Amino acid sequence: MIIILKKNATEESISRLEALLQNKGVKANHIAGANQNIIGLVGDTSHIDISNLAAQECVEDIKRVQEPYKNANRKFHPDDTVIEAGGVKIGDGSLQIIAGPCSVENEDQIMTTAIACKEAGATMLRGGAFKPRTSPYSFQGLREEGLKLLIKARQETGLPIVTEIMSQSDLDLFADIDVIQVGARNMQNFELLKALGRCDKPILLKRGLANTLEELLMSAEYIMSEGNMKVILCERGIRTFETATRNTFDLSAIPLLKQKSHLPICADPSHATGIISLVDPMSLAAVVSGADALEIEVHNNPKIALSDGGQQLTPDMFKATMDKIKGLCGYLNRRIG
Amino acid sequence: MIIILKKNATEESISRLEALLQNKGVKANHIAGANQNIIGLVGDTSHIDISNLAAQECVEDIKRVQEPYKNANRKFHPDDTVIEAGGVKIGDGSLQIIAGPCSVENEDQIMTTAIACKEAGATMLRGGAFKPRTSPYSFQGLREEGLKLLIKARQETGLPIVTEIMSQSDLDLFADIDVIQVGARNMQNFELLKALGRCDKPILLKRGLANTLEELLMSAEYIMSEGNMKVILCERGIRTFETATRNTFDLSAIPLLKQKSHLPICADPSHATGIISLVDPMSLAAVVSGADALEIEVHNNPKIALSDGGQQLTPDMFKATMDKIKGLCGYLNRRIG
Amino acid sequence: MIIILKKNATEESISRLEALLQNKGVKANHIAGANQNIIGLVGDTSHIDISNLAAQECVEDIKRVQEPYKNANRKFHPDDTVIEAGGVKIGDGSLQIIAGPCSVENEDQIMTTAIACKEAGATMLRGGAFKPRTSPYSFQGLREEGLKLLIKARQETGLPIVTEIMSQSDLDLFADIDVIQVGARNMQNFELLKALGRCDKPILLKRGLANTLEELLMSAEYIMSEGNMKVILCERGIRTFETATRNTFDLSAIPLLKQKSHLPICADPSHATGIISLVDPMSLAAVVSGADALEIEVHNNPKIALSDGGQQLTPDMFKATMDKIKGLCGYLNRRIG
Amino acid sequence: MIIILKKNATEESISRLEALLQNKGVKANHIAGANQNIIGLVGDTSHIDISNLAAQECVEDIKRVQEPYKNANRKFHPDDTVIEAGGVKIGDGSLQIIAGPCSVENEDQIMTTAIACKEAGATMLRGGAFKPRTSPYSFQGLREEGLKLLIKARQETGLPIVTEIMSQSDLDLFADIDVIQVGARNMQNFELLKALGRCDKPILLKRGLANTLEELLMSAEYIMSEGNMKVILCERGIRTFETATRNTFDLSAIPLLKQKSHLPICADPSHATGIISLVDPMSLAAVVSGADALEIEVHNNPKIALSDGGQQLTPDMFKATMDKIKGLCGYLNRRIG
Repeated sequence: MIIILKKNATEESISRLEALLQNKGVKANHIAGANQNIIGLVGDTSHIDISNLAAQECVEDIKRVQEPYKNANRKFHPDDTVIEAGGVKIGDGSLQIIAGPCSVENEDQIMTTAIACKEAGATMLRGGAFKPRTSPYSFQGLREEGLKLLIKARQETGLPIVTEIMSQSDLDLFADIDVIQVGARNMQNFELLKALGRCDKPILLKRGLANTLEELLMSAEYIMSEGNMKVILCERGIRTFETATRNTFDLSAIPLLKQKSHLPICADPSHATGIISLVDPMSLAAVVSGADALEIEVHNNPKIALSDGGQQLTPDMFKATMDKIKGLCGYLNRRIG
Repeated sequence: MIIILKKNATEESISRLEALLQNKGVKANHIAGANQNIIGLVGDTSHIDISNLAAQECVEDIKRVQEPYKNANRKFHPDDTVIEAGGVKIGDGSLQIIAGPCSVENEDQIMTTAIACKEAGATMLRGGAFKPRTSPYSFQGLREEGLKLLIKARQETGLPIVTEIMSQSDLDLFADIDVIQVGARNMQNFELLKALGRCDKPILLKRGLANTLEELLMSAEYIMSEGNMKVILCERGIRTFETATRNTFDLSAIPLLKQKSHLPICADPSHATGIISLVDPMSLAAVVSGADALEIEVHNNPKIALSDGGQQLTPDMFKATMDKIKGLCGYLNRRIG
Repeated sequence: MIIILKKNATEESISRLEALLQNKGVKANHIAGANQNIIGLVGDTSHIDISNLAAQECVEDIKRVQEPYKNANRKFHPDDTVIEAGGVKIGDGSLQIIAGPCSVENEDQIMTTAIACKEAGATMLRGGAFKPRTSPYSFQGLREEGLKLLIKARQETGLPIVTEIMSQSDLDLFADIDVIQVGARNMQNFELLKALGRCDKPILLKRGLANTLEELLMSAEYIMSEGNMKVILCERGIRTFETATRNTFDLSAIPLLKQKSHLPICADPSHATGIISLVDPMSLAAVVSGADALEIEVHNNPKIALSDGGQQLTPDMFKATMDKIKGLCGYLNRRIG
Repeated sequence: MIIILKKNATEESISRLEALLQNKGVKANHIAGANQNIIGLVGDTSHIDISNLAAQECVEDIKRVQEPYKNANRKFHPDDTVIEAGGVKIGDGSLQIIAGPCSVENEDQIMTTAIACKEAGATMLRGGAFKPRTSPYSFQGLREEGLKLLIKARQETGLPIVTEIMSQSDLDLFADIDVIQVGARNMQNFELLKALGRCDKPILLKRGLANTLEELLMSAEYIMSEGNMKVILCERGIRTFETATRNTFDLSAIPLLKQKSHLPICADPSHATGIISLVDPMSLAAVVSGADALEIEVHNNPKIALSDGGQQLTPDMFKATMDKIKGLCGYLNRRIG
C-alpha cells in the first residue's frame, strides 16, 4: 500500500500517521518525490482499511498494490481448482454445457426441454424456480414446486441441476440441488454469500451488472472465507451505455479471471446479449477464450415462455449451436462433459 | 406498447400474434410505415411480458409507451406523499437532515456523534449496525448490539433513527427502528423488498449502483405492491467510468423523480461523492434541486472510524455545512425538521 | 416513428402537431391506449428531427422505429460489401491481419517490425504517423516522415498500409496510403468524416470510446453520404466502469454489426484490452465471431517503444498467436489474406 | 510514480529497469512488501511514459502519484485564473450567463432571441454556426453566414459571443468571435486543440461524453502548452447507463475541478439533461456548487427550432429561471455579469 502525503502536511500529523501504522503492524518507508512525498508500507496490509487511512490529516490519496483477496487469488494457489457437481467436473480442462429454460414453468415444459437439451449434448440442466424479476407484476417462479420439478428432470435425464437461490432462508430447500446459483443482483448480498459459505455445495456466482472483476473475486472470497471453496465464477454481461444488446458481454474477463484466480469460469451468452442470434457466436467465442462452462437458455417453446422469451433458444437452435461447439471442441482437443 | 414487425413477416405469423394479443385482452392497431409495419396496442399492457412478445416469429422489436409502475407513479397519484417517521414528516416541503456515522462502533462514539449532530441541527440519526462491506475481512458492524445503541441514542437525543437492513430474517430486530434503509447493493434483493412491503415502517430505498430511475421505481413498486406505501427514494450516486469521485452524483434524478413519482426523495452526498470536501457543495445543490431529505455521514472522530473514514464529516465540518443549509433554507422559505 | 401524447394534451395542440406532420409529408395515425394516446407516423421519417417534434406542446415522448442510417443499412443492401485495398480484399469471407507498431518510430523499427509481421503471416501493415496522445508531453508521432517510412516498408514487404489521419488538412499527405484510419477520438469529428467521404480510399472507422453501434453506423453514413462507400467498421473496446482492462471489448458488436450493416468489420484486441496476454484469446474470439479483419499491435522491441509499450506483442508472441489463428482459420475454412 | 514488480522478477531484469530509470533522470527507491516488491520514483516523472515502463519484463503494474498536468494544476498556480472576454470577466467570483439558441437559424431568430436573452439578464450570447450532428441528414448549421449573424446580434445587444469551432481550418473565420467553444465530441481532437493553443482567444472547452476530469484537464493542457492560457472548462453531462436524461450531469465535477485547477468552470444544464424542466433546478444547483458561468439554450420559438428543440427554453421560461438565479445570487452575494 502506498500513501501519498499532502504537500503541506505537518511533521506532527505525519508522526501521528506513523504511530497509527506501527500500531497496525506495518512499517512506513518514506520516499521524497519532486512534488510529492509518499510512504510505502512494508508488511501484510490486507487487514488495513483504506478509508481509515484516508481520514488521517496528512493523507492526500492511497493506492493499493496488493490484491485484497487471498483464497481466490492464483498467486497463493497456482493450480486450477476443479469442482465436482453431480458427477461432472468443472475446471479440469473439459467444457460443461449448462442448458435449460429461464424459468421452470410446469412438468411438461421442464421435462421436454431437459430431454431435448440432453440429446443435443448438454451436460447439466439449468432452470429458475425462484425468479428475480424487475417487476412485481411479472411471473415470480414456481419456487419450491420448481425445485421438485428440476429434481424430477434430473431423475429422468441424469443431468446435474443448477438453480438460483434468492434468500438464505430458502437454503434448506436446496439440499438436493447440485449447484446453487447466485444471480447478478445478489452478487453483493453479503448475508446470502456468508450463508452459502457455510454449506458444502458448489456455488455458481454471477458477476453483478456493475461490478468489477475485483469485486466479483471479493464476493467469491466471502463464500470461501466461510469455508466453502467450491466457487464457479460467471461472466454474464455488464451494464454499459450501449443499449443495442441487453448487456455488454465482457469476454476478456474470462482469460483475465483465469490469470487472477484459480477458480473455474462459466460464461452466460444468453443474459450477456439478450439476443438469440448472438448466443451462437458468443458461445464459440467463450470456448476459444477458455471458459470452463457455458450456461445457455433453451426452452421447448419460447413463444409461450413465462420469462425471457426473446433470448431462449429453441431445441433446434440449441442443437445447431451444440454441433458447432462440438466441432470446435474437437479441433481444440477439449472434452465436453 | 408498440410492436415493430419484421419486414418479411408472414401473414400467418402476424395472425398468430394477433390471436395471442386478443387472448391477453388488448387490441391490435395496425400502422403501415414506409419501410416498417407496426402494431399499436390499445388497452392496459402493464401485465404483458415484453420478452414473451419478443419471442414471437414476426416481431422485430417492441417499445413500451406506458410506465410499468403504478403505485409509485405520479400520473395516478398527483399529490405528494408525506411520510411520518418518529415524529418528523418527510415530503411535506420541509427538509429533513439525517446525520450520523457510517457504522455504529460503540456507545461513546454513537452518543457523542448523535448529540453533536442534533446540536448542529440534524433532525434524524443514521448509523449502520449491519454493514455491507466489499471485503469479508472488513468490519461487519455490531449488528443487534448496534441497533440497541441506536435506540439508546434516540432516547438521549430524541432523534428518530434510520438504519440499514441486510436480510429479511433480521426484520424482527427492527421493530423499534423508525426508518429501515435498503442499501444500494440490495435494491434488487426482491425477497427482502417483498418482506419490507409486508411491514408497516417507512423504507429508505437507495438507488443501486447501476440501476436506472425506472428500476428504482420498480423496486419501490415491489414494496408498495405488498401494501407498504411509505417509501422514500434515495439518490446516492451511480457507477460510471469516472474514478475521481467514488460514484457519480446524479443530481438531476431528484427533480426528475419528483416529476415521475409522488414519493419523497432523499439525497446522500456522502456516498455519492466519497470526498469530504464535496459533501458541503453537493448538500446545497441537493436542497435547491428539491430534495426532501439529506443523509450525511458524520463521525465524532473520523480518523479512528472503522469504516468510510475518508468521507465522514467531523462535527465541526457538519456544523459549518448545516449553517449554510440553514441559511439557504431560510432564503428558500423551507423549514428544517 | 411513434409520438406519445401528454395525458392532458388539448385538441388544439394536437391539431397543430398534425398540421406540422402533414407539412413534413407524413400521415398521423391515432391509437387510443388505456392511459396514453399515441400517434404512429406513416411514411418516410428519416428526414424528421426528433427534437423538433419533442418541442411541440402536446408531445410527451417520441420513439423511433426505423434506423436513421440508409447507406450503411443491410435492410437496403443485403449483400456484403467487399473492399479492395492495395491488393487484398476485406469482407469477402477471408481474414485480413493488420499488424504493426503503435507508432512509426524510425526506419529500422518499422522495417524490422514489418518484415517480422509479414513472416508471421500478417497481410497488411499498420503504424501510426500522426498520434493522438492524451498528454501534449507524450510523443506525437513522426507525422509526414512517418508516412514516408510506411511507404518504404510497403515497398520492402508488399504489405498494404493502414495509418491514422487526425485532421482533414493533412488529407493530401495520405494520397499513397492504402487504408486511412479514423481513430476512436475522431469518430464524431464530422468535418473530417465529410472530407473522407469525398476521397476515394478505404476508411477504417474506429468506434468511439462511448459511442453506440448506431452512432458508429451514423458516422459511417457521414462518409457514405458524401459518396465514399468503402468503410470498414472497427470495434476497439468501449469505456465502462471496469478498470482491469484498458477498455471493455464489446465482442458481440461484431455479429450484431454484421446483421445491421453490410460493411466489413475489423476487431482491434490490442486497444480493446490493453493487456498483452489478452490479445491472443481475444483474437481467436474475434475470428469465431465473424470479424473480417484483426488489427494487432506488434513492435520489434516493445521495451523501448515510444507509445503503448505495454500492449504491443513482440514478433515471437505475434508468431505464436498467428499460428493459432492459422489453425483456427484452417478449421473454419477461412482463407487468410 | 510507483512501480510494482512481478513476484518472480529476476535481479537482472530489475537492474535493467533501474538503468532505464537512471537514464530518464529519476532515482529508484526500493520497498520490500510482504508479498510484493515495489519501486518508488524520486524526481520529476511528468515526462515518463507509463506504457514504456509497463513494457519492461519485471513490471507488474504502475501507479501514478503526481498529476500529469502542470499548466492547469492548482498546485502550481494557487490563484484563480480570471479570463476577460468581450468586456466580461469569467472566474472573478461573478456569474456569467451565456444564453442563446442551439443553432443560429436566420437573422430574425438570432436577433429576437438575443434581445430576449439580454432583457432577461444574460451576459453573453451563444449560438451554433457550425453544428456537430449525429446524422448527416440533419441541419448542419449556417456556418460562415451564422458567424456573421452572431456578430450582428452582438452589435445590437452588446453581448459578447460564444460559438463552436469544428475544424482548425475554419479558425480564421473566428477572428471576431469573443469565446471559441470546443464541443464535447472534439475534446480530444488534438490537432484542433493545438491550433487553438496558438491563438489568443478564450476557449470554452467542453468535457467529452466519456472523458474523465483528468482527461479534460489534459486537453486544457494541450491548449495551454502551446501558449494560450485562457481556457474555461465546461461540464455538460457524461454518458452513463441511465437513459432517462440525455446525459448524466456530473455536478460534483464543478467543485472538484475548482480544487484541482485554477481555471474557471462553466456548467451547461441544457445539454447535461436534455430536458427543459430540469434546466431550471440544475442551473440553481450549478450556481450553489460554485460554477463561474452557465450556458443555457434559449430559442425564441423552440417549436420550429432546427435542432435540439426539446431542450431549449422559451424566452419566458428563461426569464423565470433568470429571476430565480438573480434571487439566489443576491442571497449568495454573487454579481451577475
